[in-house]
Amino acid sequence: MTTTNIREAYIDVRKLSETICEPLETEDYVPQPVPFVSPPKWHLAHSTWFFETFILKSFDPTYRVFDPAFNYLFNSYYNNIGERTVRTNRGNVTRPTIKNVYAYRHYVDKHVLELLSGPLIEKMLPLIQLGLQHEQQHQELMITDVKYILGHNPIFPVYKPEHNLVNSQNPEYGFVSITEGVYEIGYTGEDFCFDNELGRHKTYIQNFEISKSLVTNEEYLAFMDAGGYQDFNLWLDEGWSWVTQNGINSPLYWHKMNGEWFYYTLAGLQQVNPKAILSHVSFYEASAFAQWKQMRLPTEFEWEVASEQLSWGQRWEWTNSSYLPYPGFTKAAGAVGEYNGKFMINQMVLRGASVATSPDHSRSTYRNFFHTNERWQYTGIRLVK
Amino acid sequence: MTTTNIREAYIDVRKLSETICEPLETEDYVPQPVPFVSPPKWHLAHSTWFFETFILKSFDPTYRVFDPAFNYLFNSYYNNIGERTVRTNRGNVTRPTIKNVYAYRHYVDKHVLELLSGPLIEKMLPLIQLGLQHEQQHQELMITDVKYILGHNPIFPVYKPEHNLVNSQNPEYGFVSITEGVYEIGYTGEDFCFDNELGRHKTYIQNFEISKSLVTNEEYLAFMDAGGYQDFNLWLDEGWSWVTQNGINSPLYWHKMNGEWFYYTLAGLQQVNPKAILSHVSFYEASAFAQWKQMRLPTEFEWEVASEQLSWGQRWEWTNSSYLPYPGFTKAAGAVGEYNGKFMINQMVLRGASVATSPDHSRSTYRNFFHTNERWQYTGIRLVK
Amino acid sequence: MTTTNIREAYIDVRKLSETICEPLETEDYVPQPVPFVSPPKWHLAHSTWFFETFILKSFDPTYRVFDPAFNYLFNSYYNNIGERTVRTNRGNVTRPTIKNVYAYRHYVDKHVLELLSGPLIEKMLPLIQLGLQHEQQHQELMITDVKYILGHNPIFPVYKPEHNLVNSQNPEYGFVSITEGVYEIGYTGEDFCFDNELGRHKTYIQNFEISKSLVTNEEYLAFMDAGGYQDFNLWLDEGWSWVTQNGINSPLYWHKMNGEWFYYTLAGLQQVNPKAILSHVSFYEASAFAQWKQMRLPTEFEWEVASEQLSWGQRWEWTNSSYLPYPGFTKAAGAVGEYNGKFMINQMVLRGASVATSPDHSRSTYRNFFHTNERWQYTGIRLVK
Amino acid sequence: MTTTNIREAYIDVRKLSETICEPLETEDYVPQPVPFVSPPKWHLAHSTWFFETFILKSFDPTYRVFDPAFNYLFNSYYNNIGERTVRTNRGNVTRPTIKNVYAYRHYVDKHVLELLSGPLIEKMLPLIQLGLQHEQQHQELMITDVKYILGHNPIFPVYKPEHNLVNSQNPEYGFVSITEGVYEIGYTGEDFCFDNELGRHKTYIQNFEISKSLVTNEEYLAFMDAGGYQDFNLWLDEGWSWVTQNGINSPLYWHKMNGEWFYYTLAGLQQVNPKAILSHVSFYEASAFAQWKQMRLPTEFEWEVASEQLSWGQRWEWTNSSYLPYPGFTKAAGAVGEYNGKFMINQMVLRGASVATSPDHSRSTYRNFFHTNERWQYTGIRLVK
Repeated sequence: MTTTNIREAYIDVRKLSETICEPLETEDYVPQPVPFVSPPKWHLAHSTWFFETFILKSFDPTYRVFDPAFNYLFNSYYNNIGERTVRTNRGNVTRPTIKNVYAYRHYVDKHVLELLSGPLIEKMLPLIQLGLQHEQQHQELMITDVKYILGHNPIFPVYKPEHNLVNSQNPEYGFVSITEGVYEIGYTGEDFCFDNELGRHKTYIQNFEISKSLVTNEEYLAFMDAGGYQDFNLWLDEGWSWVTQNGINSPLYWHKMNGEWFYYTLAGLQQVNPKAILSHVSFYEASAFAQWKQMRLPTEFEWEVASEQLSWGQRWEWTNSSYLPYPGFTKAAGAVGEYNGKFMINQMVLRGASVATSPDHSRSTYRNFFHTNERWQYTGIRLVK
Repeated sequence: MTTTNIREAYIDVRKLSETICEPLETEDYVPQPVPFVSPPKWHLAHSTWFFETFILKSFDPTYRVFDPAFNYLFNSYYNNIGERTVRTNRGNVTRPTIKNVYAYRHYVDKHVLELLSGPLIEKMLPLIQLGLQHEQQHQELMITDVKYILGHNPIFPVYKPEHNLVNSQNPEYGFVSITEGVYEIGYTGEDFCFDNELGRHKTYIQNFEISKSLVTNEEYLAFMDAGGYQDFNLWLDEGWSWVTQNGINSPLYWHKMNGEWFYYTLAGLQQVNPKAILSHVSFYEASAFAQWKQMRLPTEFEWEVASEQLSWGQRWEWTNSSYLPYPGFTKAAGAVGEYNGKFMINQMVLRGASVATSPDHSRSTYRNFFHTNERWQYTGIRLVK
Repeated sequence: MTTTNIREAYIDVRKLSETICEPLETEDYVPQPVPFVSPPKWHLAHSTWFFETFILKSFDPTYRVFDPAFNYLFNSYYNNIGERTVRTNRGNVTRPTIKNVYAYRHYVDKHVLELLSGPLIEKMLPLIQLGLQHEQQHQELMITDVKYILGHNPIFPVYKPEHNLVNSQNPEYGFVSITEGVYEIGYTGEDFCFDNELGRHKTYIQNFEISKSLVTNEEYLAFMDAGGYQDFNLWLDEGWSWVTQNGINSPLYWHKMNGEWFYYTLAGLQQVNPKAILSHVSFYEASAFAQWKQMRLPTEFEWEVASEQLSWGQRWEWTNSSYLPYPGFTKAAGAVGEYNGKFMINQMVLRGASVATSPDHSRSTYRNFFHTNERWQYTGIRLVK
Repeated sequence: MTTTNIREAYIDVRKLSETICEPLETEDYVPQPVPFVSPPKWHLAHSTWFFETFILKSFDPTYRVFDPAFNYLFNSYYNNIGERTVRTNRGNVTRPTIKNVYAYRHYVDKHVLELLSGPLIEKMLPLIQLGLQHEQQHQELMITDVKYILGHNPIFPVYKPEHNLVNSQNPEYGFVSITEGVYEIGYTGEDFCFDNELGRHKTYIQNFEISKSLVTNEEYLAFMDAGGYQDFNLWLDEGWSWVTQNGINSPLYWHKMNGEWFYYTLAGLQQVNPKAILSHVSFYEASAFAQWKQMRLPTEFEWEVASEQLSWGQRWEWTNSSYLPYPGFTKAAGAVGEYNGKFMINQMVLRGASVATSPDHSRSTYRNFFHTNERWQYTGIRLVK
């Protein structure tokens, strides 16, 4: 990537974060209703803190930090960078104001762009690229976190009237067959990828057939109508505890009103569209549905091998692979090394991308990961037989 | 009280709530950092909901509610009025916006004032008076809740530069002696009082001497320096658990920095003023301090009997009386009856008033009450020997 | 009390603890199903530890402790005596065995009786008396704790076939009237009493009428049938939370089977006897029942004044008085001072005695106390109007 | 397996459970100090219940159950068999007594052996075999649960004076090299194996070298002395939370006394033997230690491929593989299908066997599994580079 390209990319990515927030009221930027959801204000500030910390402080000797307190307030989980706000406390930090956070963004942007206009600093470019990819990840989280905040308000406010991400449908149906053999897995190109995709390596795959379509609301309603949420034989033991202890009986955001199923969308409350692709299910639900269908979820390796023949990008697709390091994985020294490696336990891999994923932020080798009970992302199900 | 008087009182009280919020940023109105603190936005809306529910819906047949959803959103604890937002969820409700809540206030104000301009409705006046007293109670909570929100922000924002409520000092020292005998307790006048003050009745008081002054920071620092927080013999068993499990070693808002004690005030972080009256202690701390001084806290009856000879109103003063009904106490039928009676268990009575109490909202018979571990109010200690 | 008397009392009281345990299997001595229930083994050892610690170690210079580890294992809550087993861990300490604990008892008994055969030690006698009263308190707890352990076993084992303590009935009905005036409260005799009964003092009582009978199962069933557990207006706010969060719909040990109410008794599962006196209710239930009857609970002072005209001793009777110190209360120095005073907060006083109370362990001035949600004691309701 | 063989195996395995319990006092059979530890009494009864439920009730039409209540009391997790005691409540069920549980064992044994003396029932044999394997698994749990119960008693009772399982040492050192290629994984013989080992399939393995020895106490002490428990960079994010929230600073059962490290063994408290193989570490600790050594844990596939060249069986060896189904895994219908499949999420595979594993209960294809924080089994570390 050239400096010019990266400059343009920087401008575009940084702008998109602000565009996503345009429909918000000031109040919407503040709360953290559950620990895994962060306030939009925090996302805006934290993604800026990343550039201030890893670019400006490192490569611009004349840079003066915008506010020394921000390092404490907007560090997410980098132990190497020092103390930080307790994660569950993000929603209580009312100052700095939104206005001040925007000033922070623009101050940092100004300095980064100045730096990019100066002489080329080789070691800086990959870190800027990482910062942009990082911000794109937070952009998707901003959308899903805003959906969580508004979608749990009893009056179901609209984010954007035209913004119904969950209504998309499958372009094709049927199954793709893959033949047994040794395949190569992992990123191999010259462009950006995360460290967890590296270490291209051989793996042995058995014969399998994978669906060209994702499960639809209609198909999932059949599972619900057949008593899927009441039959313990379909569920993992942990999944059954999750269902019974939380009284789960539908995907997230679904509400039964006068005998009809509705769901909250970013365009407001709507009747569930039977033909649309199912979204907002946990790994437990994906696993139970597959069990009911007498099929299974793909492994992440099967998914990657088949991906060329699939249409993907509507939902993050749960795989039956744990998030573990590839052979030869090593994490970078220092804070950047905390990016991925330390989370490689007790999470499942999701492949593909979703309707909320930022442009130019998907690859067939991309490894997303969430805990088995999490479902506020646009998650869906693809089956294998 | 005449209709004119009440009209004026209504205007004044309602205005004060908005004055209290003037220094706030929009963001400050939103969060609920702990369950017992409510968002300022919620206070503004809930005190308005009280008038809409108990006045306009009851006495104005032409009234149309501002927004039907607000009954669900802004009911606090009145089971008789129906379902409501879970208390711990108040900080996540970003809509309606602040602006909309102010519109709600002004809409309700307009209709109440119109009603007060019309023909006299006898039964309405006591309910308006109750609504104003209720709003005054929320005004004090707004101040203490704002202090909690800003005071737990790592950057310690200033509410008002001149607004240091905790620096006030004792006007006099020494002890007042009261002679043993039968005394009468409870409200007896013609003006407003709460139902929990009624049922004036005789009680027998033993000889006692009560301090004319409240405990100062200096006196409390002596307790701390003497190892008061480390000596279990001074504490109630529950208090000692509270100290050890929460790592308590100072009043709320105190921070030791470079060997000096500072406290957060509404005017920002300041060095502890040794001559100022101690504030923000729990009942447990008040009890342990009294034990250390080989004195005790007054009962609420002793306090009321002595009150004419005391200067009071700087801090809510912990008494050693539980919040229980007076002889002959009965609660009103319906929702208004839920105001006080149902809380008469496992709380302690505080007497007096504090620097944050609204004007015209104190009486020597007033019974405030909090749990033994709560200390975000302006609470203090007066000793008896 | 003479040395001979106390020697006889010592033998009797110590023997009764073992008699209570006779019907137990070894396994029954071990568990602690909830923190407030202690294993019978622990009671046997702890009451012995009390004599070893406060008598033998203090007054017998030749005494050698039975086992040094027992001080750690069987201290209950005396901070002045040092570290001890975490309270919630008592049920996991399988060694020493029961047999060993009995050996401990007999070893300590032998030495105490030797000491009592020697020259009179004035200061020792009140501590032995305290130790015996202490053991009697644990005897009642042993009965209620055994009931809890066996009564929560799905197979409802019988403790003693003839031992149905809850079937006793009221000897009389009607009301006693007490006239307003100044009365004296507190212990005034020459025999043993606890420090919390001392400080006889005047109190002013209003006119009241108190029931000669305790509430029966029949009367309580009427409350249940009338929807008492479903009507929030009858309950204290805390009580209503307790009911809804724990799904409470009957007294402890009651089970509805095929449409009939049964209760676990120490003689096994039996159909509820409508004429028997109600037992095993919490303060919340007592308060709600009184509210439903449009009466109230007595204060502890009313109870004490009326007690001469009442027949009492079947149930611990909930009063509407908080457990707080009498005027002039002071606690003794050192460990003995931890006996009562440090618990004087957030508990309610119960007066009388129960069918499980040890002989010679009741007085009209006795102040028992429990938390508002506790009901594994033989607790009942007496009403005032 | 012939009927004669299985009859002998039945007698041997059933007897071993009772041999394991011989050193126990009656009291030791009762408690459940933490949810994942079960009372020895429960193990004895539950393993018997397995035979009663799946053999006698199914294949012996004349069989009369020993006690109908036992199905409720001693079912572990088989939803298909119906309601059962809440898992965390096992330690409170004092009846039936130990004696009665032994009577239950002998009653069931008598009937099973009679059935095995009768005409051959083909379908029964695999279920008896499963029952014996099941009992062997519980035998290992009985040893580790007894260790947990006695090892958490402040007086550290001895189980058997000669029974120090943790003192064993490595028979050899150095590394084994494995060459890249396609290997087959999974059970392939004719004897018993669990369903989770089936579905022999090809997998691709990269070059690796695996240690012939397990990590010793000496090596682990070097990690501790180097600050391993204080350096967040060595830990998985979840592992670091586990360390800090639980104050972990050594393996389970280790105690620092007067500057020396001791550990609880079944032979009592002993000084840590530096040459002995490390035991009782969590996956988090295994992972952090490997990181510190700049090596890694093997995958379960690498372990299986290398196993022929390794000496194993001293410790359950943590692998870096999640417990997930092999290709083609299907679970049996009904209750037996609940044995393994429903636990295939959020646990890690351990390979090998430990000093506490029952004889004839290990295979190189055996897949054991525990949660990442569990360490009361005899778990150890083998490294790969």
